[in-house]
Amino acid sequence: MMPDPIQTALERLEILGRISDDPSRLVRTFLSPANRVAAETVGAWMEAAGMETSHAADGTIRGILPGTDPTAKPLLLGSHLDTVIDAGKYDGALGIIAALAAIESLPEPPAHPIHLLGFSDEEGVRFHTTYLGSRSVTGPLDAETLATPDASGRSIAEAIEKEGWHEGATTIHYEPRSTCGYVELHIEQGRVLEEAGEPACVVSAISGQARVTVSLDGLADHAGTTPMPLRRDALGGAAACILEAEAIACADPPLVITVGSISIHPGASNCIPGSARFTIDLRHPGDERRLHHLTALEEKFAAIATERGLGFHWKLVQDDPSAPCDPALTDALLEALESVSGSRRSMPSGAGHDAVALSKLGPIAMLFLRCREGLSHHPDEFASPEDIATGIHILTRFLARL
Amino acid sequence: MMPDPIQTALERLEILGRISDDPSRLVRTFLSPANRVAAETVGAWMEAAGMETSHAADGTIRGILPGTDPTAKPLLLGSHLDTVIDAGKYDGALGIIAALAAIESLPEPPAHPIHLLGFSDEEGVRFHTTYLGSRSVTGPLDAETLATPDASGRSIAEAIEKEGWHEGATTIHYEPRSTCGYVELHIEQGRVLEEAGEPACVVSAISGQARVTVSLDGLADHAGTTPMPLRRDALGGAAACILEAEAIACADPPLVITVGSISIHPGASNCIPGSARFTIDLRHPGDERRLHHLTALEEKFAAIATERGLGFHWKLVQDDPSAPCDPALTDALLEALESVSGSRRSMPSGAGHDAVALSKLGPIAMLFLRCREGLSHHPDEFASPEDIATGIHILTRFLARL
Repeated sequence: MMPDPIQTALERLEILGRISDDPSRLVRTFLSPANRVAAETVGAWMEAAGMETSHAADGTIRGILPGTDPTAKPLLLGSHLDTVIDAGKYDGALGIIAALAAIESLPEPPAHPIHLLGFSDEEGVRFHTTYLGSRSVTGPLDAETLATPDASGRSIAEAIEKEGWHEGATTIHYEPRSTCGYVELHIEQGRVLEEAGEPACVVSAISGQARVTVSLDGLADHAGTTPMPLRRDALGGAAACILEAEAIACADPPLVITVGSISIHPGASNCIPGSARFTIDLRHPGDERRLHHLTALEEKFAAIATERGLGFHWKLVQDDPSAPCDPALTDALLEALESVSGSRRSMPSGAGHDAVALSKLGPIAMLFLRCREGLSHHPDEFASPEDIATGIHILTRFLARL
Repeated sequence: MMPDPIQTALERLEILGRISDDPSRLVRTFLSPANRVAAETVGAWMEAAGMETSHAADGTIRGILPGTDPTAKPLLLGSHLDTVIDAGKYDGALGIIAALAAIESLPEPPAHPIHLLGFSDEEGVRFHTTYLGSRSVTGPLDAETLATPDASGRSIAEAIEKEGWHEGATTIHYEPRSTCGYVELHIEQGRVLEEAGEPACVVSAISGQARVTVSLDGLADHAGTTPMPLRRDALGGAAACILEAEAIACADPPLVITVGSISIHPGASNCIPGSARFTIDLRHPGDERRLHHLTALEEKFAAIATERGLGFHWKLVQDDPSAPCDPALTDALLEALESVSGSRRSMPSGAGHDAVALSKLGPIAMLFLRCREGLSHHPDEFASPEDIATGIHILTRFLARL
């Protein structure tokens, strides 16, 4: 009797969850020994599922299931093998393992070839980059990226040369329009599905993200001897900005704005804050709305600073466009979702995923699975076996219908 | 020809400003060598002015000018000799030197004896206490205070025993109602006089001060994947509290409320703050209003926390009552102020002074002098020679009329 692909997938998740560079917690980073073992392990599972495997020197693993139509472009599936430090076992790994289980569950060979990719780096822990593995399959990394140093000063280029998986390595690159798309399953990393009581949904777009550093400069005065009208309190100004950002975000869902970090100077309880510095993280699935709100926020903050006699400095440190999911591919995924779970829920992803990098090649689509309390990047990260089975069923149906 | 007392005072300020434990900046702390030299120097000036001097083992210096009325209680004048680290030369020292110049300017001996006190500690730098020197003249320090350790672990009692000025020391203590009051001149340490364009004013009361630590606990969620309605953002709650505190203070002058310190956790730009902790410094010259506002603030904050689904913790860490100035003594000072400067301005002191400790003995009154940009506790602290002369004239007139 054939082993049950879902049971196998759950066991594989446990196995991958124990392949770690640190015996006391889960951590696999770009080119680390554990990341290589994880790729080899996944490669062996791919071969057992009848796929032909290859790997890139940077540690990305690929399995190819031939299609019955020799002219069809391949469909790409995948997610990442690397983790954050002290990670959970679902983020990344589940996407690869669930896709493999779906391939194993197919009643007959697909028309399109299926390429399953286990990317060597999405989290960017070692080099503070993102999508290093998935970006690499869309074309060679540029010289600036390759020169990025890790904490020890070793560049990405040197790391690949000295630590890469060179034996039997091949180049895994795709040209734009050479595939019929990329589909990724991932845990939601949020609480929307849990609140809705639904196991899965499709993703409408991966939100664009702007990051801003804001500084307000007032006057550090004595807390006892400075009457309120004479104050130029930088923290008061920051508080007004924080509430303004909150109000703007609440008024236009799915916009989210977060002030996650703040520091003030001098920071003594008996001293009026002379300066405040805080961060803005603004995400929206629509590029036009993101830019609109970014401009609106800057104008509101400038007005608050002027009104309070504060110096104002706005520094845009990152502004990534959104990656919309492909309507046709997403419709097919939605049909599979509906037939398995009865829901047609769709939502934007506020977190980045390998699909962002893959969107350079062609259409993308994503399936989100419910995770407990929205928790991720934490050892308590959890998706239930039932929800994982649901996710595999949806992917299987999607592949079978393609 | 007699030297001009005002010119002499200005020169003495420069001399005291160079008596420091650190050659690169002004610092004199409780029982430090420089604090002892400063007391000896002031003692010599007192003697030159015809005063009989004595000193306490803790370093407080006193000069006594006999009065013509043998039954009259003494009038106390004074301020502190110690400084903060990297101090200006006016805070404390000016009060002693100006009083001495006023005594020297008296056209004839006063009816009351005048006791001029140079306290060994007001700033509390070494032991994180306040008014150590001035409290000591109102009675022996209690055992708990005497056991307070400095950074090296040495207690106040040990420090006085091992480092005190024991040669020729006497006990300088006053019983309650044994004096006719205490009068102190001090720089304002705020910008009210500068804004008003006036050189001096009297003090109506030294404000009571409450210090509170506030904690708000929410949930540290992912900045990208948590829609606004699902957030329990502790910093959003803190921002609402900060603006509420500001509004309450602005609505009831001379109330002042300051949030001078804030920290949030986890404090990453892509993470919704799960907890926020900030300080409240609330001062008002009226005890009833201070307590009223403290209660109102706690209630408002609790409501904000409830509305936002945040845990709320309010910890009162200090609550000192106000020290009202004596109406009769203050009227006499006001008359002197008006006759010299034409103003009858009075304001509460938001900063603490030795007069708070002396209020235990009897009536107190204070004269504030304008200081540039309200700056104090800083090497750029500055009061103009003209304003210092005005202060000395006011004190002289006050003493002459007593």
